[in-house]
Amino acid sequence: MLVDAAAKAGILIDTPCGGQGRCGRCLVRVDKGQVSDYESPYLTTEQIQQGWILACVARVAGDLVISVPTRSEQDTITSESAVTRKAVITHLDWPLSPAVRHLFVELPPPSLADNTADFDRLKSAIVKKHGIENTKAGLPLIQKLSQNLRKAHWQVTATIDKRNQSKEARLIKVYPGHIKQPPLGVAVDIGTTNIAATLVNLDSSRILSHASTINRQITCGEDVISRIIYSEHRGGLKQLNRMVIHTINELLNELCDNNSIKNSNIDRMVVAGNTTMTHLFLSLPPKYIRQEPYVCSATHFPLVTARELGVRINPNALIYCIPAVAAYIGGDITAGILSSRLFKNNKLSLFLDIGTNGEMVLGSSDWMMACACSAGPAFEGAGVSCGMPATPGAIEEVTINSTTLEPTIKIIGDASPLGICGSGMISALAEMLNTRVVDKAGHIRHNTSQNSRIQPGEHGAEYVLCWAADSGTGRNITLTEVDINNLIRTKAAIYAGITVMLKKLDISLSQIEQVLIGGAFGQHINIERAIQIGLLPDIPWERIQYLGNTSLSGAYNILLSEQAQQQAENIAHNITYLELIADNEFMNELTAASFLPHTDSSKFPSSKAST
Amino acid sequence: MLVDAAAKAGILIDTPCGGQGRCGRCLVRVDKGQVSDYESPYLTTEQIQQGWILACVARVAGDLVISVPTRSEQDTITSESAVTRKAVITHLDWPLSPAVRHLFVELPPPSLADNTADFDRLKSAIVKKHGIENTKAGLPLIQKLSQNLRKAHWQVTATIDKRNQSKEARLIKVYPGHIKQPPLGVAVDIGTTNIAATLVNLDSSRILSHASTINRQITCGEDVISRIIYSEHRGGLKQLNRMVIHTINELLNELCDNNSIKNSNIDRMVVAGNTTMTHLFLSLPPKYIRQEPYVCSATHFPLVTARELGVRINPNALIYCIPAVAAYIGGDITAGILSSRLFKNNKLSLFLDIGTNGEMVLGSSDWMMACACSAGPAFEGAGVSCGMPATPGAIEEVTINSTTLEPTIKIIGDASPLGICGSGMISALAEMLNTRVVDKAGHIRHNTSQNSRIQPGEHGAEYVLCWAADSGTGRNITLTEVDINNLIRTKAAIYAGITVMLKKLDISLSQIEQVLIGGAFGQHINIERAIQIGLLPDIPWERIQYLGNTSLSGAYNILLSEQAQQQAENIAHNITYLELIADNEFMNELTAASFLPHTDSSKFPSSKAST
Repeated sequence: MLVDAAAKAGILIDTPCGGQGRCGRCLVRVDKGQVSDYESPYLTTEQIQQGWILACVARVAGDLVISVPTRSEQDTITSESAVTRKAVITHLDWPLSPAVRHLFVELPPPSLADNTADFDRLKSAIVKKHGIENTKAGLPLIQKLSQNLRKAHWQVTATIDKRNQSKEARLIKVYPGHIKQPPLGVAVDIGTTNIAATLVNLDSSRILSHASTINRQITCGEDVISRIIYSEHRGGLKQLNRMVIHTINELLNELCDNNSIKNSNIDRMVVAGNTTMTHLFLSLPPKYIRQEPYVCSATHFPLVTARELGVRINPNALIYCIPAVAAYIGGDITAGILSSRLFKNNKLSLFLDIGTNGEMVLGSSDWMMACACSAGPAFEGAGVSCGMPATPGAIEEVTINSTTLEPTIKIIGDASPLGICGSGMISALAEMLNTRVVDKAGHIRHNTSQNSRIQPGEHGAEYVLCWAADSGTGRNITLTEVDINNLIRTKAAIYAGITVMLKKLDISLSQIEQVLIGGAFGQHINIERAIQIGLLPDIPWERIQYLGNTSLSGAYNILLSEQAQQQAENIAHNITYLELIADNEFMNELTAASFLPHTDSSKFPSSKAST
Repeated sequence: MLVDAAAKAGILIDTPCGGQGRCGRCLVRVDKGQVSDYESPYLTTEQIQQGWILACVARVAGDLVISVPTRSEQDTITSESAVTRKAVITHLDWPLSPAVRHLFVELPPPSLADNTADFDRLKSAIVKKHGIENTKAGLPLIQKLSQNLRKAHWQVTATIDKRNQSKEARLIKVYPGHIKQPPLGVAVDIGTTNIAATLVNLDSSRILSHASTINRQITCGEDVISRIIYSEHRGGLKQLNRMVIHTINELLNELCDNNSIKNSNIDRMVVAGNTTMTHLFLSLPPKYIRQEPYVCSATHFPLVTARELGVRINPNALIYCIPAVAAYIGGDITAGILSSRLFKNNKLSLFLDIGTNGEMVLGSSDWMMACACSAGPAFEGAGVSCGMPATPGAIEEVTINSTTLEPTIKIIGDASPLGICGSGMISALAEMLNTRVVDKAGHIRHNTSQNSRIQPGEHGAEYVLCWAADSGTGRNITLTEVDINNLIRTKAAIYAGITVMLKKLDISLSQIEQVLIGGAFGQHINIERAIQIGLLPDIPWERIQYLGNTSLSGAYNILLSEQAQQQAENIAHNITYLELIADNEFMNELTAASFLPHTDSSKFPSSKAST
């Protein structure tokens, strides 16, 4: 291995995970020479192109010149990598055919010989120059049209929103003069915990900026059930709606500031969200989503104007909410299936979206079945004492020395550690299990250990990941037994969901040809460790793929392609929904899976071998 | 004549017009026996059926028993007749195919085995029971849907708005249970001076109620030009919009109160108005209608919800504004041509709408040309010292004794005279001309007459129609020289418009096979007198037809028939507009027509013969 060759040459490279390619800390850059190929999930395509490799798993193939970054350089590289991964969106998978276009038209000024009405004059010019018939407009736009046309001396850029298959075009803006800038759109993923938005050039499909932040609704409850309960209070729905709109408007302001554009220059929005989030975004009461038999108001949502919702973009712009399948399979999953390509793959695939809720879709191009389980927001940083989202300052990777029990931590961004995010928790829990800090039932062995990292705490025994002196909060960053119970409950729900769906369909784990991990959270999971704790089923690693934020990526594709939108509608229509909430089998499987990795250790042969 | 036979029998029947069938005062009812047929424009079909005739023009055909009403009974009859005439609407001329329908559906309640979303469940039931696919709804309706379906125990009446040719149906209401009452709609005619509304049963086409009132905007100017100027003031457009909406809402309240229904039970509205009135109704700035080259914002208006405009009916109901042709040929004329049937008649016809503006359409099923002239609101009671609209208390008919110069007046309703309306002015002016109270230039001959009815007044010489002692205002009701000048200007504009359009098309008056008089005002004109003053061209009476309020009648037809709506759109598209405003020939003809009846008396042979 390169790490050994470097040691011989007197260069000591730190390998906290013990040389298993697990922690990504032994990052070096090959400046000259060759190493044998090794694709690590820790490296982005860009980093690989730049020559970065993991020294612990790369084999030397000849003479080499390498650069070893200092710790702080390394932090910069990994934080860049983290940011890149956060913003990552799969490329446009569909023909570029955005609904919104800028059409420049010069209108003949009216005269006594031709005093056609202003709107008719504009429509004629659009037909004549661009061949687009039947342009309609809402009242607010026509109310300003006469003034706008005259101010612009009859030379305007008309922004229209039109699907090719539609006979109608909708006029959504009239800019004075010949606007050279492309039309812009924004893809939004409304997560229960985080909201992400991507600003896109609709002419080129280029991503201009990405922003994400916490959903302000978090103060009204951490999971969808608490939000629904909150919405039932007097004025609660209105408040939750305002909060999500406010959060989105903040992201829009950030995107616009970063690109020095006006909010009103954004002419389309596509929104992906779980069914409850989409309901709250549209002020639809989610009340009956929570009550048996779990019914939502709608799965297909009307196209609304930004004005109607108070979203701060062009007020005449249309907002498309990706259709849902059922109360617990939302537009985020429809978008996920679209961007995972599961719907057109003939391999039997399992799509997993692990967010505040866990949703899974099993199927192929022939059929698709979906179910959902209330995983809880532990992996998103809520319900865990030092939990936080995957933002700068979060511990995202933990390696524990099996002798000293000393942890090595990787932090997102150039910051002191502030807490631990989902991927950090999985990693920490797996390492604690591997090093026997925690037993298979999730108990911290504080009685049998004299190590200072294991100590009693307010919430039972705890393991100290970072001492107060090194932390950015001035307090120890720990993982407690209560936290671990929450994590076990969450991972058990997801595993039980997978098991029950397979059972109902009489399919065995080994028949699954690929596992596609999507959702905003999925991109941060370390597969090996997720299997070790029993979150993911124990199948060969190579069958498991990270897809990144598939919800946002689906929204991005739909924003840019009407074929993608049509496909999303087909997907939502074609998925069969399996209701697990009141399923006894699910409850049994949940109990069985509430163990590390599982009460039936034969289900986790690789884990058994390692421990 | 019957009047003579009655006199012989000792019954004196008053005939103020001198027995020419001109004043309608000699109304009697034939209880037994026969008189020779005589169809008078003063009698409604209902009155004729009840046996009412005009004694001065009916010939006795045998023994008769007649009832002669007392003066007050006669007033009641004529006031009823006036009201009937005001409310008159031509019958439905088109297949009954209203857009709005009530669909009763029973939904299977949701269960764990079928927890389809509420809106999807409703849509499926509509497809299954009524075969209507692709039902869409606006957000506000879906926001209340879950609650409404459950409150109604899954049995609801869905109100949908759907044109047969459209692939989409729009859900506009969900009533609990099985609503037996028919869907209701309202046809509205927004005149510059008066607004009229008719409540209609959309299942049967039956008219339930009619209401009309003054357009509140009248305080902001009497004609469209003054309104446009007002709209250009700060906040003016908003204020004018509020005023028209307020007026319409008052009418709606009246219609609903009269029929003991809720405003929210009205599910469709069709609006006819001139282009400026339609602009103000939709808050479209009418500014450029007034400035050369006279351009409006739009001629085809978007379908809007009642919610958007603040109209007090079902807030999800759609409001259709009948398309205009040009800045001065509005949806009221499109509606007029629709209900006049000019567009499908092979006779060369002239359609006249005499309101605050005078509009005229010449043509047949082959071609149509329209022009407009600013007639001014004199005939609608504005710009005339004692002018008032045709409401109770208005003098609507005047007969002047040629010897004594004493007038006999007919008043609308059971009221003391308050002023004079358009038909009264035409009648008074013609009688003043016939009795030489006024000369052909419009001057009152106060120097040569010693009659007390002719006196000097604040605004020049005046003729007293009603002494203060008999009037409901406590003041004399007069017609002044200034009033007469206004009337002459108005009638001259209309006549000049007709003349110029005929000249442009090289058509002579005699080629016109029929003159169709529509508009809210037209129904009150006495043809003979209108020709005497030169308002209408001197063509045989039998070619001239009263059509009543063709604007409202067109709106009524469009409300009930999508074929009528389609035809209205074709009409608006097919009419060629002739701009007269800046036309020199028009100015010349206007001057020539500013005489009673005209400077060229050869154009009025019948009038010449009588004077």
